[in-house]
Formats: sequence, C-alpha cells, structure tokens
Amino acid sequence: MLRVIMKKIESSSFFIGRQGDGIISFGSGQPDLPPPKEVFSVLSGKQRTFKYGLIQGEERLRNLLANEYKGSDAHNFVICNGASEALDLIFRVLSGDLKRRKVLMPRPYYYSYPFIVKFAGLTPVFTDLKDGRIDLNDFEKKVRGCAAVLINSPSNPTGRVENIETLKQIEKITQNSGIHLISDEVYKDLIYERENYVPKGKRVITVNSFSKTFGMCGLRVGYLYSPDKDLVQKTIEMKVHTSMNTNTMAQEMAAAALLAPKSYIEKQKEIWKKRRDFIYQGLLDLGLDLWRPEGAFYVFPRVKNSSKVVYDLYYKYKVIVYDGSWFGSPDRIRLSYALDIEKIKEGLKRIGNYVKNA
Amino acid sequence: MLRVIMKKIESSSFFIGRQGDGIISFGSGQPDLPPPKEVFSVLSGKQRTFKYGLIQGEERLRNLLANEYKGSDAHNFVICNGASEALDLIFRVLSGDLKRRKVLMPRPYYYSYPFIVKFAGLTPVFTDLKDGRIDLNDFEKKVRGCAAVLINSPSNPTGRVENIETLKQIEKITQNSGIHLISDEVYKDLIYERENYVPKGKRVITVNSFSKTFGMCGLRVGYLYSPDKDLVQKTIEMKVHTSMNTNTMAQEMAAAALLAPKSYIEKQKEIWKKRRDFIYQGLLDLGLDLWRPEGAFYVFPRVKNSSKVVYDLYYKYKVIVYDGSWFGSPDRIRLSYALDIEKIKEGLKRIGNYVKNA
Repeated sequence: MLRVIMKKIESSSFFIGRQGDGIISFGSGQPDLPPPKEVFSVLSGKQRTFKYGLIQGEERLRNLLANEYKGSDAHNFVICNGASEALDLIFRVLSGDLKRRKVLMPRPYYYSYPFIVKFAGLTPVFTDLKDGRIDLNDFEKKVRGCAAVLINSPSNPTGRVENIETLKQIEKITQNSGIHLISDEVYKDLIYERENYVPKGKRVITVNSFSKTFGMCGLRVGYLYSPDKDLVQKTIEMKVHTSMNTNTMAQEMAAAALLAPKSYIEKQKEIWKKRRDFIYQGLLDLGLDLWRPEGAFYVFPRVKNSSKVVYDLYYKYKVIVYDGSWFGSPDRIRLSYALDIEKIKEGLKRIGNYVKNA
Repeated sequence: MLRVIMKKIESSSFFIGRQGDGIISFGSGQPDLPPPKEVFSVLSGKQRTFKYGLIQGEERLRNLLANEYKGSDAHNFVICNGASEALDLIFRVLSGDLKRRKVLMPRPYYYSYPFIVKFAGLTPVFTDLKDGRIDLNDFEKKVRGCAAVLINSPSNPTGRVENIETLKQIEKITQNSGIHLISDEVYKDLIYERENYVPKGKRVITVNSFSKTFGMCGLRVGYLYSPDKDLVQKTIEMKVHTSMNTNTMAQEMAAAALLAPKSYIEKQKEIWKKRRDFIYQGLLDLGLDLWRPEGAFYVFPRVKNSSKVVYDLYYKYKVIVYDGSWFGSPDRIRLSYALDIEKIKEGLKRIGNYVKNA
C-alpha cells in the first residue's frame, strides 16, 4: 500500500511540494523560507576543484558542530547525506553488533523509520502516543528486550514536543540498561513553547540536519553525533563503501549556515510560530480535533477514513495533505504549514468547504 | 586488517591524496584534472532555493543520460550519491528478491565490492583473473548457482579492459540464465586501446559516475541504469528512506558536464594516455612485472610482501601506494597515475631507489 502511494507521490511530484495548477499543498515537509544569505557566498568562492573529501566529513564543519555539543570534538561526528543516511548508517552499523533485534519507536512515527529499521535487519516495535506524547508506562513495558529506541522530538508528524521530564526518564532508562537511544532532532531549532532538552549518554546517538533549520533540504547535509568514538569509526568504515564523502560543496554551505547570525533562526521561528497559531486556530474553527503543535511545522488532525480524505481533498478541492496511515495513524492526516499565510488561508477555506459538504 | 588500514587511511588523509611534506602520492583514485568549465556556470546561476528534488534524480539530467543509452528514457535511471551508493542500493534491493545468495566477481576487485555485497546479506565469490583478464572457463564454472555477477571494465585496480568477446560471452551467459549482471563502468570513458562494449540485457544494471570522466569526485554524483523499470522503481522506494534525493546542485553541475563539448573528454584522454605510457615504461625499466594498463588510471605491479612495500615506501621514501591485499591481491601494489608527469617522474625515481636498496 505505502509502496503504491510513494510511487504516486514520486511520479506526481507531490513529494517536492509542487504548487502549480491552483493546488495548495500541505504535503511536503520542507521549509519555503530561504537559507541564510551567507550560504550563497560559498558559490561565488574560489573553490574550483572537487576532490574526494574525508569520509567523516570536512574538518571545519565538524569543528563548528563540536562547538554546539558540550564535551565533543570533531571526532564525534559523521557528516551524512541528510539525516536519512545518518539513520540508515547507524542502524546498519548497530545491527552488526546487537544481540537483541527489536527497536522501539513511538507511533505515529516518521514514515521512513520502520523501513530503515527493517532494511537493517531489525524489527520495529511501537509504543502508542497518549495525547500526542510518549506514555512512559507503556514505554517502560515495551522497552524491555529492545536493542535500541528511536525518538523524534519535536515530532514529524505530530508537531508535539516531549516533556523534558519524559526525555530525561527515557535517557535514564535506556542508558542504565545498555540500550541505544537514537534521537532524531532535525526540528530541534523549531520549538515554539519552551526550551529543548537533548538526551545525553554513552549510548545516545544524536541525528540532525541542515535541511529544516536552514532551508537546505535538496542539498542533503545531515550528521550524527555520538560520544562513542568506536561507533563513529564503524560508521565511517561503512560509509567509505556505501557512499564515500558527503558532497563537499554542500558541506561548505552548511558551515556558512552555522556561521550566520543566530538572529536568522529567531526570525524564522517567529514566522513559523505565526503560521502555527493561524493553522491551529483555523482547524479548531472548522471543528477538527487536533493536538496543539509545539514544534516542527506539522499539524495532525483526526479524521475518519484518512485515505478517502486525502483522495477527495486532492481531486475535488486541489489540496494536498498526507495520509496519517503512512505515519502509522490511519485516523489522521498530516498538514505541513511550510506555506505563507495567504496560502494557508486559502487551503483552510477549501478544507472548510470539504468539511461542510462531506 | 582492512579495518585498521582504512582507519589509517582516513585519519592520515591518505585517502584524499594529500601531497604535502614532499610526499608523492600514487594513492587516491581521483583525477587531478579540472572539470569542464561549463560546470561552474551553475554556481553563478540564479538557483537560490534548495528544495527537495525527485528521489529518482532531476528529470533534465536523466533525459540527458537517456540520450547516451539506446532505447532508454528518463525512467530507466536513478541518480545516486556516486557509483558507491548506486551499487549499495542495487545489492540491497536485489537481496530482498533473490533466492540464490552468491555474487560472483573477478579478483583482484575494487576494495568496496566484497563489503557492499556482504552488507546486503549476500556472499561474494571470486573468479581469479588470468593475465589481468577474466578467465571464461573459470567464470562459467563459478557462475553456476550465483544470483548476480559484478564486473568492472576498465578495472580498478588492474587498469585492464576486458575483451569485447569476453563481455559478450558474459552478457550471454548471465542473461540466458536469469543472472543479474551489474556492470560498474565508471572508467568507460578512459580507454586507451580500443572501442568499449557495454553489456546489455533485461538483467543488466549499468552503474556509472561523473567522478572520473569529469573530475567531480567530491560532488558525489553517480547513477544506475536498468531496462527493468520495476527494479528502478524498487530502488527509488528504498532511496526515499535511506538518503532521499541526490544533491540537486551537484546534479545541475553533472548536467552541465554532459553538455560540455566532447573534446573535453578527448583532451583528458590524451593526457591520461601520455601518463599511462610514461609510468608503464618507467616501471618496466625498474624491472617490475606488471600488466599493460589499457584503461582507467592504475598500474598494478607485482611485488613480494605488499604490506611491507607500502610501509617502507611511505616511511622511508615518502611515496604513497596502495596495498594490493586491499583489492584481494597481496602480491601486488596499486599506483594511481592521477598526477602530472613531473610528479610521476619523481615518484618513479624514489621507487627506483627503494628497489635498488631493497
């Protein structure tokens, strides 16, 4: 089923958030906001050879990242083709060493998670969210016998941010029982409610990306950070065979993004927050049942028969939304609000018409 | 053992062919020649957003590639993070469907091949080259019971090009018995002796790259071509989870390279051919036993105790060469001649001193 849908997404370019033909797309999860202008200075630079880079990633970029992770240095990072490759590599590497074969993840999940885990020969198991957040009781029961846990806060598709206390508990439970905790934090700079907490520990692997914070999705630069240098080394030793270095020019651009003034991120966040408020209130006004989004740029309202809703909205109202069943939640649809307010307004109007006529 | 060496390569930057401290590096397999100037026009262009691209690759680039493969269209290609990712993906995809689990490859082989095959849960088996070429008798015996064959002509590390008759026989044997033939042709534009032959057939998967022909190693653009659109689709469906699109800017640069005048390749080839003649004769003059290289940019002379030779040449003579044992051939060393003639001359002088004193 997902295969057919993905095929459709790919062939019809849903995936790249095409907006032509009067379509309003709440589909693709990519910022419409531009990268920091500093990024473009790289392109006019003098670099005119394109030799292989270090498999681990350019030293300059890794040094800049080390400034952001207390107690780390450049050896703790591997720069990858987006967070996707970082996750794929880390599960493939772990799979070689793990005796236990189960990986626990909250459901709803980012649609690639079960695939990535299965591709690595491991078995995904699920803890269902309660009111859009991890239920620690269920988590503690399910985590026994697991080799690893994969969390994503702020979450795609829920837009929810885990409580700091929950994250600390998960950190404690996993690190005390030798369980790897893979924390996908690609939305960590997009939190609208409170400070973030980044889990730490010998068996914590942090995955991040330049795609969302800096609007650089298509350039594919992400990374993993681990305090375990042996694990970092094993990842490099796999990547040397599976893709070699990550695009060196894109890494320079990522470094330029990190050096842009922090106000860039603050300004983006203000824009996202306004959109968040607008779409959240708009969907409430239409009578939809949804969690208040606290981070990332998704809302995940409840519907009956999500695949029919996706179909009807597209063919009858020219609105693209994603089917919750792709994310393990067939009673919901995902809307990305990476759109200017005018488009969100028009999209909400159409959804309103659909709701009235349904 | 390889792990230790790769660690050393990575940490000491052997791998990126560093030339400092008076070192002459015959190590890394990357052209020192610049890309076509057309490639740089992309950087000064107007493209200033970096949205996700199609997972399969930019349509314009795939259309340009389709011009180069008779009977193909843009749907037959997947653009990847170099030939490495193309190979990794294809074996992972095939692995899901194959009943037989063995993959036959000639030995010596490109060092990543056995790893990529094993990472996919398959088993590499080997047919030993005879005078640097595939021995069809041995090939026919070994290929029985194999799921796939992986060939590389022109070859890294041997520099040899298979006879057209051999390639046609391999094509016939594999295609008549339902065996997948993966043909890694990243050096196909660098043949100094005769025309090339590109195997064809429903179960032929051609892997290629912009790295070698166009001097774009660090940008990581490669691709796979298959007449089997179902296989192409399965590859896309895996890549959507494992790395998403390939860097879109690098794909534009690859398209610009394809549109550069064909004289670019001809001029490069003349340079490579001169270097080839120079290093081949130079090593013969030193009394070394080696195959005459016909393509790519490697020579692979016979030595006693290759790891000692690699160690001594580096620490006593400041010359980097690669150990044949990494390529399945412990009685040889690999020299890349991606160096200007003056450096080759100096390197040969040092190797000459070593040979005299050894």
